[in-house]
Amino acid sequence: MPMGRTSNARERLIESASELWHSRSYADVGVNEICEHAGARKGSFYHFFSSKQDLALAVIDSFWSQAKVRLLDPALDSAGPLEKLVKLLDGEYEVQRSFKDSTGSMFGCPFGNLAVEMSTQDEVLRRRLTELFYELAEHVERILDDAVAAGEIPAQDTRATAIAIEAYVEGMLLFAKTANDPELIKDLAPGVLRLAGASPQFAEQLVGAPQA
Amino acid sequence: MPMGRTSNARERLIESASELWHSRSYADVGVNEICEHAGARKGSFYHFFSSKQDLALAVIDSFWSQAKVRLLDPALDSAGPLEKLVKLLDGEYEVQRSFKDSTGSMFGCPFGNLAVEMSTQDEVLRRRLTELFYELAEHVERILDDAVAAGEIPAQDTRATAIAIEAYVEGMLLFAKTANDPELIKDLAPGVLRLAGASPQFAEQLVGAPQA
Repeated sequence: MPMGRTSNARERLIESASELWHSRSYADVGVNEICEHAGARKGSFYHFFSSKQDLALAVIDSFWSQAKVRLLDPALDSAGPLEKLVKLLDGEYEVQRSFKDSTGSMFGCPFGNLAVEMSTQDEVLRRRLTELFYELAEHVERILDDAVAAGEIPAQDTRATAIAIEAYVEGMLLFAKTANDPELIKDLAPGVLRLAGASPQFAEQLVGAPQA
Repeated sequence: MPMGRTSNARERLIESASELWHSRSYADVGVNEICEHAGARKGSFYHFFSSKQDLALAVIDSFWSQAKVRLLDPALDSAGPLEKLVKLLDGEYEVQRSFKDSTGSMFGCPFGNLAVEMSTQDEVLRRRLTELFYELAEHVERILDDAVAAGEIPAQDTRATAIAIEAYVEGMLLFAKTANDPELIKDLAPGVLRLAGASPQFAEQLVGAPQA
């Protein structure tokens, strides 16, 4: 991790790389183009980052910080556990749709995109993304534990279910990105509720509930 | 689709591109390297393919033909519908594990990999991969229709369930590729059976059944 002081240029480099990589691919956008897009000199780049990979780690952290803000949104607190999960997924749909509306393309998951492209080619990025997938699964696992405690779903291996739900959502994002159609992820709740082992009765009740 | 006569060189180019792209990424391997790997001259390449994209379409068709052989394997005919699905997924695990054993890396799904990397950058590949995901979902849908008819699962929107199952499997492949651990996809049956709405009793019976 780069520990240089934060400056406007460092933030701009991270933002430019996030935008360019997310909309195209890691291989397709190099350091020169990122510097140009950020209005930063190459010397400035290497003041903050030792390499493209080093910048990628900072970009991953930046996307992850944004994701955590959503995961920990206090506005979700009033919802029941599984309802919270459904609202989080509705939020993901809104994000993807806004990208599609403004650029014409659905970009998918920045972590999944980088993981698929780079896992066989960059061991440092692969390991960081693996950690992050497990960390995200832990958030889902805690929500599922709450759902078990609230009697919404039967007792189960909530860790395995959390990973299954994460995979399902990643796969739907992949599918919707390929079809370039965010509407395919508009209603992820039924699949998530089935994976969580919710009864059809509870699922109907929840999906019929007002959405945030 | 290239319609030039089939020759050993054409097959070798497709095989080399399949191997190199699957193990690394589309952007990382260019026409020169593919020609070198295949022992083919560049003139030979352009006799068979008009571009890298044109070769990619042939590679997609080649992977898809191999997948269909597995989907239509007559050895699966004796199994019940959902058991057939579980056996297909067991086969996918074996394929991924053999790549890991022989190369040290798990490569994931060739269609998912290309779709994630190229969907925002190549409209022709994106459209072909979208068609293919829907075609694969149709195979799963037919199995689910059989499962409904056999009373294994309740009547439902089998098309939506097929897409959910395909997404779940793609997502688990993505996750296992990132973790570089094929054991993560060793047991996809419980998630698939939950998505299909199978009763816990039926799922237990099926997962306990001897595996092919």
